[in-house]
Parts: sequence; C-alpha cells; structure tokens
Amino acid sequence: MSDPAEHRGKIRISEIFGPTVQGEGALIGVPTVFVRTGGCDFRCSWCDTLYAVDPAFRADWKPMTAAEVLEDVKKLSGGKPILITLSGGNPAIQPLGALIAMGKQEGFTFAIETQGSIAKDWFADLNYLTISPKPPSASTSFDADALTACIEAAQSRGMLDGPAITLKFPVRDEADLMFADYVRNLHIGIPVCVQPVNTTPAEPHPDGKDGVDIEDLTARYRWLVDEIAKRQWFDVRVLPQWHVHVWGNLRGV
Amino acid sequence: MSDPAEHRGKIRISEIFGPTVQGEGALIGVPTVFVRTGGCDFRCSWCDTLYAVDPAFRADWKPMTAAEVLEDVKKLSGGKPILITLSGGNPAIQPLGALIAMGKQEGFTFAIETQGSIAKDWFADLNYLTISPKPPSASTSFDADALTACIEAAQSRGMLDGPAITLKFPVRDEADLMFADYVRNLHIGIPVCVQPVNTTPAEPHPDGKDGVDIEDLTARYRWLVDEIAKRQWFDVRVLPQWHVHVWGNLRGV
Repeated sequence: MSDPAEHRGKIRISEIFGPTVQGEGALIGVPTVFVRTGGCDFRCSWCDTLYAVDPAFRADWKPMTAAEVLEDVKKLSGGKPILITLSGGNPAIQPLGALIAMGKQEGFTFAIETQGSIAKDWFADLNYLTISPKPPSASTSFDADALTACIEAAQSRGMLDGPAITLKFPVRDEADLMFADYVRNLHIGIPVCVQPVNTTPAEPHPDGKDGVDIEDLTARYRWLVDEIAKRQWFDVRVLPQWHVHVWGNLRGV
Repeated sequence: MSDPAEHRGKIRISEIFGPTVQGEGALIGVPTVFVRTGGCDFRCSWCDTLYAVDPAFRADWKPMTAAEVLEDVKKLSGGKPILITLSGGNPAIQPLGALIAMGKQEGFTFAIETQGSIAKDWFADLNYLTISPKPPSASTSFDADALTACIEAAQSRGMLDGPAITLKFPVRDEADLMFADYVRNLHIGIPVCVQPVNTTPAEPHPDGKDGVDIEDLTARYRWLVDEIAKRQWFDVRVLPQWHVHVWGNLRGV
C-alpha cells in the first residue's frame, strides 16, 4: 500500500472474476461476477480464502474506485447487467455504498457475503444479504448484537424494501449445529441454510492441485441431511459448497 | 391392478420416501418428503425413474387414497408439516387435488415436478410448480400449447396467489440448449433453471451399484456454466442433479 490519502474512499480489491455461478447459499447456481475485497476482521480456523484475509497478502490488494470496479465487471459481463456478488474477506469493512448505487442505476443487482460482525447503512440497498455467523469450529467469537445490527440495517427501510436475507451456517460438527440452532432462534423468520465446512487448507497451491477430498465433503453433506431430518428442522436448507465439487478449492472460480 | 372400480379416485403410488432434501431445481437443498406416482404419458430416452414410468412395473404401483398418502407422509415426518414433493412419472395424470387440499389444511406445502404436457385445475393450489419441458435429446415431442395451459392453470387465480413457477430444462447438448432458449422466450418472466442430463441407465440395480460417472456429470455441469456465460444468459440458473452426486442414481433418495 502506498500513500493512504490516495486510497481514501477506495475499495481494496483482492480479485474480480466471472461470469461464473454462485456455488453456495440461497443463490446457488445463479450467474454472477464476484468482487472479492481484501481484509477481514476475522480469522476463521478453516478459512478457505486466506489470500483475501491474511495481511501478508496485502500487497496483492488493489485500491480501486467504485467506477473502476464497475468498469472491470462490465468488461467481464460484456456490458450486460448481472448479479454482482460482494465477497471477501469481509466486504462489510469496505466503502461499497457508491458501487452499489452506481451499479443499480445500470441494472446490476447486488449480493453480499458477510459474517455479520459489522453493519453498514448500505446493506439496505442490496438485493441479497447473506450473513454467515461463524460457529464454534471457526474459533472466532460471536457477537449477537452485531448480527442484530446487520439485520436491522438491512431492514431499515422496512422489510418489503430491503434485501432478501439468509442466515448461512458452515457446520463441521454437532456443536456447530447447536450454534446454528441458537442463532436461528434469535431471528425467527429469516431463511436458514447450513453447509458442510470445507476443511481443505486454503489457497494458493503453486502446483494447481487443491487436494480437496470430494468423498469426504459429500459424506459430510449426507451427515448434515441426516441430522436435519432427525431433528425435524424442515425449514432449514442443506446445501453444498458446490463450486468446490465442480472446480476444486482454487482461486477465480 | 385389480378391480378398477375399487381404485377410482385413488392415486397410483410408486414410492413415498424421506425426509430427505430436494436435489435439483429452485428448491435444491430444501427438506422434503417425496411422493412419487406411477405412470407417465412420456417415455424419455434417458428416463432415470423407469420404475415409475414403464407399465412393466405397474404391479408395484399401489392405489392409495389421499388420506392414506398423507398418513404415510406424516409417519415419515413425525407428524410435522414439511414440503411434499409430488413427482413421477408424471404426477399430473393422477387425481392429486384432494391430497393437496387436505395437506395444506394441516400446514404441509406442496411442490410438483411435471413435464408440462397435462394441465390440472389443482396446479393453482400448489406452492411450487416445476415444469420440465423435455428437450430434443429426450426423443419425445413438445406441445407448446399444453405448456401454456399448465402455466395458465397455475395462474388462474392471479399471479400473486398461485404457485412459484420454474421452468427446468435438462440439457445434454447444444440442441437442447437451443430448445431451452426457444421455450423460455415463450414465457418471459418465469424463472429458468438448466441442469445436465444424467445419462446413467435407470434403476433398479440389483447389486446396489449405480454406475454413475460423477466426473462426467461434473464436466457436463462445467460445460453448461461455460455456455450460459458465453451466451450471457445471466437470468438462467445452472444447477446439478445434486442427489445423484450425493447418493447415486438409486431409489429412495
């Protein structure tokens, strides 16, 4: 990073890629361009995008204006409006309001993936807000008030005007499931997804191999379906991290 | 089948199983009990549920009343309301109106999977209607008027009151993609999914093996994503037949 003054108001971008499809959560399979921001207030034990989290990669994060980001997205989409998925790291620590306003004017729609630790006013301008509270296996902490603040920020213009909200829980074990149950009961009415945690170490892999154990991931999915069925949580959706099955745990997919 | 008079008004059931999750389409990952009816007006070249289609299996199809079907579903769900997915065969040839009315009174919700060849008044009572017009590779015929009749039946009480409709296209090759494009343009505004065709021969497999080539299915998915991206069909969702990846091409999953 050079002169901070020069970067004021800019978005720290780790990567912009697509069009591909969203691989997880309620929008699974939906064509999208990903805008991945650099930097995170968390450090999950099983983080699969350390290159957008660990300050050691900071030199790779490019400060860009909203107009520059939108220009790059349009190059990828052939100028055609598409769903833009804001991911990270934690994109909620970036100044994304201008990008969302500018993009929506041109017909783009916006989804965000965040852990629910930091609320922003511009959450209300999103089309989709996916909040992924980190469970015990992530070895981070959970701040119930921060999560509530995120939901309230998104609904600040009324529930009919704000984004569609989903709570998405990565689940590695029974303690994680209990955590998901606790949190979803704090916010009755918000749709819930659970997904198996990909425990493969994060990128980059210089040899291009990712070492993902698809059999293991699939077995974890079967276990999750069994648990959800046994507990009769019939309003909880069970989804895979499908992109890992399709493309492995690589960057730019 | 014994005395037809005795079976009047009954539903021909191939299997009832669950709770599991829906493996494909817009409701992918949603917990559900499947009610699979026997009999079909089609015979797709790559049919993956011949045991619910081929009259040779007719002796396995049990005529049941709506109350009997609902009783069986409740045994599986522990009496708790759940999404009931009506599948087949083509469930639209069965008398399902009474089951839907009875189930909804007890809090159950209903989805159907049908090919859009036969419209029924009770489509308007469903919560979700997935119509899967069969593409050229199925070697069946397409009746555009019948599809329109299905959509109109579902929307007969107004678009805000009827089921959420999805057009879901199995795609094996470029001709199938062109077919999907043609049909979706007849019904602008209806959400569209495409999915790779599972070309594994249908059940039953006495040895319990299903011979599904997961690598091949996944490669077909990657091809579909590439095609959708190249053609800039950013409003078309690309989803797998995820249950085939998770449980293979077996019955009762």
